[in-house]
Amino acid sequence: MEYFRPNIRSLDGYTPGEQPQQGKFIKLNTNENAYAPPDSVLQAIRGVDGVRLSRYPDPDATAFRAAAATVLGVESDCILCGNGSDDLLTILVRAFAGEGDTVRYSYPGYILYPTLCDIQGCLGEPVRYEKNWSMNDSFSANANHLRLAVLANPNSPSGTVLGADQILKFADTLPCPLVVDEAYVDFADEHCLALVRERPNLIVTRSMSKSHALAGLRFGYLVANPTLVERLSRVKDSYNCDTLSIVGATAAILDQRWSTENREKIKSTRSRMHQALSEMGFAIPHSQANFLWCTRSDKRTRDIYEKLKLERILVRYMEYPEWGDGLRITVGTDPQVDALLEILPSML
Amino acid sequence: MEYFRPNIRSLDGYTPGEQPQQGKFIKLNTNENAYAPPDSVLQAIRGVDGVRLSRYPDPDATAFRAAAATVLGVESDCILCGNGSDDLLTILVRAFAGEGDTVRYSYPGYILYPTLCDIQGCLGEPVRYEKNWSMNDSFSANANHLRLAVLANPNSPSGTVLGADQILKFADTLPCPLVVDEAYVDFADEHCLALVRERPNLIVTRSMSKSHALAGLRFGYLVANPTLVERLSRVKDSYNCDTLSIVGATAAILDQRWSTENREKIKSTRSRMHQALSEMGFAIPHSQANFLWCTRSDKRTRDIYEKLKLERILVRYMEYPEWGDGLRITVGTDPQVDALLEILPSML
Repeated sequence: MEYFRPNIRSLDGYTPGEQPQQGKFIKLNTNENAYAPPDSVLQAIRGVDGVRLSRYPDPDATAFRAAAATVLGVESDCILCGNGSDDLLTILVRAFAGEGDTVRYSYPGYILYPTLCDIQGCLGEPVRYEKNWSMNDSFSANANHLRLAVLANPNSPSGTVLGADQILKFADTLPCPLVVDEAYVDFADEHCLALVRERPNLIVTRSMSKSHALAGLRFGYLVANPTLVERLSRVKDSYNCDTLSIVGATAAILDQRWSTENREKIKSTRSRMHQALSEMGFAIPHSQANFLWCTRSDKRTRDIYEKLKLERILVRYMEYPEWGDGLRITVGTDPQVDALLEILPSML
Repeated sequence: MEYFRPNIRSLDGYTPGEQPQQGKFIKLNTNENAYAPPDSVLQAIRGVDGVRLSRYPDPDATAFRAAAATVLGVESDCILCGNGSDDLLTILVRAFAGEGDTVRYSYPGYILYPTLCDIQGCLGEPVRYEKNWSMNDSFSANANHLRLAVLANPNSPSGTVLGADQILKFADTLPCPLVVDEAYVDFADEHCLALVRERPNLIVTRSMSKSHALAGLRFGYLVANPTLVERLSRVKDSYNCDTLSIVGATAAILDQRWSTENREKIKSTRSRMHQALSEMGFAIPHSQANFLWCTRSDKRTRDIYEKLKLERILVRYMEYPEWGDGLRITVGTDPQVDALLEILPSML
């Protein structure tokens, strides 16, 4: 232990959601897509032969960037690919914030942000949402050594969204890059991609894990101005994305018909789930993601999580210091949600 | 640019070998395996269904670690998996060396080491090999702020090996962890795995890219004492290895028959290639890797690289400041090597 840097010695580390490798669970705890990815993705992956696997992948993921550029309406040199958007968040912290520098992030938010600060040896500065999940102007206040600001939008665990107008205002006021983590944005009504062209300090990160049902593949991308992208690409591992994930992600982003249908199914189930859980006494903010943040004023929710787990339904119990606890429940398939809704009343 | 940390602003970045995406080349420049991986690997990958891809991978890569533990004769809690061994090298630098700390590495060696230091903001301290590719004791000398020492063994570009006795002596003398990068070790006569049990500061990294013909998959692992492994696992991205690479790498390491045959074929071709190139006037140290380091006293070798490229044969031209230049040529298939040997005399 004495060999490690002091910040690594004291590191708790990021705890991912439970990923049971054995047994059959209804898994509503880590916001994976309720449905399997389209056949087009599997076909593309299975089309990769041994010779190709024996070669290094394309370090620039050219095929994906070309496809994404077309689908998203941006230039391909605005796109940088990562081994999941976690890889990109790591790259961003390493590129902008040194030891002793400050990284600001919204709170409660994605619990990886403070861990990335701890690993880097920089200071994480959480800025609290209001109780209604709005964010006030203190998020963009200037501060010494502030080098990066990160905001998930839609946010986790709330599923709520800050409007593009407010994001733009934050970007204009902040003295540093603003990362808008849009991992869940395909389930939302608006996104910030168009703003990237207007603001050189705005960076949008995306993930193929959620809306494209490819959490197992590890593929994400960011969109930012080409000058930032060029420099960030020097910080990434050369071959951070493997051949199979580039091929699979390319097929996935091109399959817009599947994406549209999938999104509509999940939004429809989300709506039904929101109503039913509200009727059971959960307070749930308006979600634009593929999960619902369910809190109760009458009791702590850990018991419910434990009881559901015994019934082999996994949801995510979250407890945020100085904020409160709740259950973050992924929008599953209709049968999965029915099973949850049927059993839940007996646990309240 | 002003947003970046000063060390990132001045970063040249690591330049990987050319990976032509178009056209047909005999590719002897990036030390990929000359042969395709076994069918067992492709079968395993193609057996992964869509539902599994939609789920996050096992963050601990349990299946691979169990398989590797059996094959290598170590405990599975001594193993940490990475998105290629580059990912592991990144994790190691981040875990042990802060800004202003020193990382020592052998020179000329793997050109990623200085880049990792630049990205981290720590000081890289190259220690030169002797002209005969031996290494003197200065490699293990104590120094202020020395936090990590890294040594590729077999080394690139030389393909040469330092004996286990000397590695052990370095580990005993150094005040910090010693990383032995064994990316090429399956083509060598000895390795350092057994030493890990004896020395708590010894860390061995391995890659599936070279001897298992899976450069496209991005999978590596390290072997170290369990206390180090546990702490290092907190520094990695939770889901740094994807489902397909875990499945493929597991099948690969279990296919020892293929590995043995492949290794013998490459060693046999290497021997023939060494002799033929020597007869053409190249000076080549004794290689225990899947490449040869070919220098000439009569001329610079860049011309030869350029001429070969025009003939669609790619080799790696390397120029090390204050050391010299040379061609690092991967051991290809016999027909590939024949093509090289046939055309080369006309270029000398």
